[in-house]
Amino acid sequence: MSLLIETLETIKPGNKQAENEAKRWIDSMAKPIGSLGVLEDIEVKMAGITGIIQNKIHKKNIVVMCADNGVVEEGVSGCPKDFTAQLTENLTRKYTGVTILSEFTKTDITVVDIGVDAKFDNPHILDRKVSMGTKNMVKTAAMSYKQAVQAIETGIEIVDGLCNKGYDMFGTGEMGIGNTTTSAAVLSVLSGLSPDITTGKGAGLTEKQFENKKRIVKDSIYLNKPDKNNPIDVIAKVGGYDIAGMCGCFLGAAKNKKPIVIDGFISSAAALCAVRINKNVRDYIFASHLSAEPGAMYMMKEIGVKPMLDLNMRLGEGSGCPLAFQIIEAALYTMNNMPSFEKACLNGEGLIDIR
Amino acid sequence: MSLLIETLETIKPGNKQAENEAKRWIDSMAKPIGSLGVLEDIEVKMAGITGIIQNKIHKKNIVVMCADNGVVEEGVSGCPKDFTAQLTENLTRKYTGVTILSEFTKTDITVVDIGVDAKFDNPHILDRKVSMGTKNMVKTAAMSYKQAVQAIETGIEIVDGLCNKGYDMFGTGEMGIGNTTTSAAVLSVLSGLSPDITTGKGAGLTEKQFENKKRIVKDSIYLNKPDKNNPIDVIAKVGGYDIAGMCGCFLGAAKNKKPIVIDGFISSAAALCAVRINKNVRDYIFASHLSAEPGAMYMMKEIGVKPMLDLNMRLGEGSGCPLAFQIIEAALYTMNNMPSFEKACLNGEGLIDIR
Repeated sequence: MSLLIETLETIKPGNKQAENEAKRWIDSMAKPIGSLGVLEDIEVKMAGITGIIQNKIHKKNIVVMCADNGVVEEGVSGCPKDFTAQLTENLTRKYTGVTILSEFTKTDITVVDIGVDAKFDNPHILDRKVSMGTKNMVKTAAMSYKQAVQAIETGIEIVDGLCNKGYDMFGTGEMGIGNTTTSAAVLSVLSGLSPDITTGKGAGLTEKQFENKKRIVKDSIYLNKPDKNNPIDVIAKVGGYDIAGMCGCFLGAAKNKKPIVIDGFISSAAALCAVRINKNVRDYIFASHLSAEPGAMYMMKEIGVKPMLDLNMRLGEGSGCPLAFQIIEAALYTMNNMPSFEKACLNGEGLIDIR
Repeated sequence: MSLLIETLETIKPGNKQAENEAKRWIDSMAKPIGSLGVLEDIEVKMAGITGIIQNKIHKKNIVVMCADNGVVEEGVSGCPKDFTAQLTENLTRKYTGVTILSEFTKTDITVVDIGVDAKFDNPHILDRKVSMGTKNMVKTAAMSYKQAVQAIETGIEIVDGLCNKGYDMFGTGEMGIGNTTTSAAVLSVLSGLSPDITTGKGAGLTEKQFENKKRIVKDSIYLNKPDKNNPIDVIAKVGGYDIAGMCGCFLGAAKNKKPIVIDGFISSAAALCAVRINKNVRDYIFASHLSAEPGAMYMMKEIGVKPMLDLNMRLGEGSGCPLAFQIIEAALYTMNNMPSFEKACLNGEGLIDIR
């Protein structure tokens, strides 16, 4: 628990002075004020994160947390549980959306077994297994409080290590059959919204299976009675190791004053937990895209972020992060290279304010 | 007029067979069906455009049409008319948003003087001036029908030439003080929507100036009575050379079976004209972002496209195109590299359908 406590004590809000300086600098540029919209917001937020006005990203890493969910035995997913292990292997073989998009955008990936119900013989999978998957949350708590803390600290540790290796922008991804169910439960508890709203149909569920999924989310919450004021308790009772691990990544990035990007619905459940644990974490978070999962928009609202992309994606894995990285890097490049109003004025024709 | 007629006769709808093949191919990939959302749609649309299933972009060019609008003398813009010429020069000096974003994304730019009210001594500005700006559309037609055709054919010619040089993806941009006013007028005529809805406040207009701008749009339409069934008549009476030129670019790209990207509000007014001239043009168009200009959402709806990005941008110039190019290229790369379901299955564990 000491790493978590130390991390929470270290996290500071974004640097408001640097943000204000960045704003003033942007408003001195040769363009109508505010006309570059979110590109300007990105620059300002990044200044708040690093304390520096002109920023450049050097190394990007998406941490993909892989874990099984005991609740899958209730038939909440159209996929068998085995897929978690298979797709975790595939993440190391450039056989998945996130790995291919990462290759395109020169992004590295860290594949973490934080709780897959399988043993791997693969040097590219980081073994940080807390247990062989969670328990069935409709019968008992998914994990113990201690296990939740361990998984969160695993995420912090991984980001700490990557920062030491020079990574300065992070993405979050996951692989875990059944994790839209746990994410819906986490969102419902933390937002107070009904599982009827937060639960999505996923891929290939029949209407009957969908009704069952919503019931499972409701029953899990009713049985476990998670404390909505304690996100760690929420994760332990109705979450998963993937959510816990990514939650740790968000905390770790904020501690290290590095930007971190939300992918889809599950990743945003982790971000919501992190922000509820420490509200300053929001200052370090960028949202990539609005997932096609119906609860995603509520999640964005609860976290207090606005996604840049609207691509109807619902693959997960972290696949939205490389696309957001492209926009963030384009924004930083633009802001670092836009001329000031004075510089942009035509020589010999005097200074004309083209803002 | 012969180039325009020949172009319109040459434009074919997107290749449905190639689209269907692309769809089948994408659905054979190792991922839940449809889970890559718009990235899949991009791949399918591109197959329709080129007739080829696996596509790669080699050279990108944004054509920036620069022109003055006579209606500026009515006080519809917060900027003086001179800015059109100054900013046209700046486009050749990497001093603008679109040039910097293009540099970042390895995109070339073609700066075209299609009707600026100034003479340039700059080898990087393509001289295709139709006249020294349009007339004041609240007093008379902005240009003659013949001039509108000439400007449209200029756009076709430029894209034809760029295709011969190997460019295989295009963006559209513009520079012209007063062109949100002309675009609102074009949208109102072609959609039937009131200028109260289609007209935006622009940068720095007071409430009184905004009321004046809406009145000018209404009066221009009332005076000129453009024929809503003839987009060329609409452009001639209440449009501008920039809109006409970009309209030609959309037609030219469709003729050459090349993808072309809409930037913001003015660029989309040109796209709407092109689609109304020949509905097949829609099959070649991608929308980049939803402009912060209030009429932009109506424009997207009228054209029948959905923007990928929501970045609250309103700079124009074509600045949204490089960001869309990044997504399109990432989508094509992903689709070209995703393994089939068979390939992605783990060796020795038999074929399991992970879709």
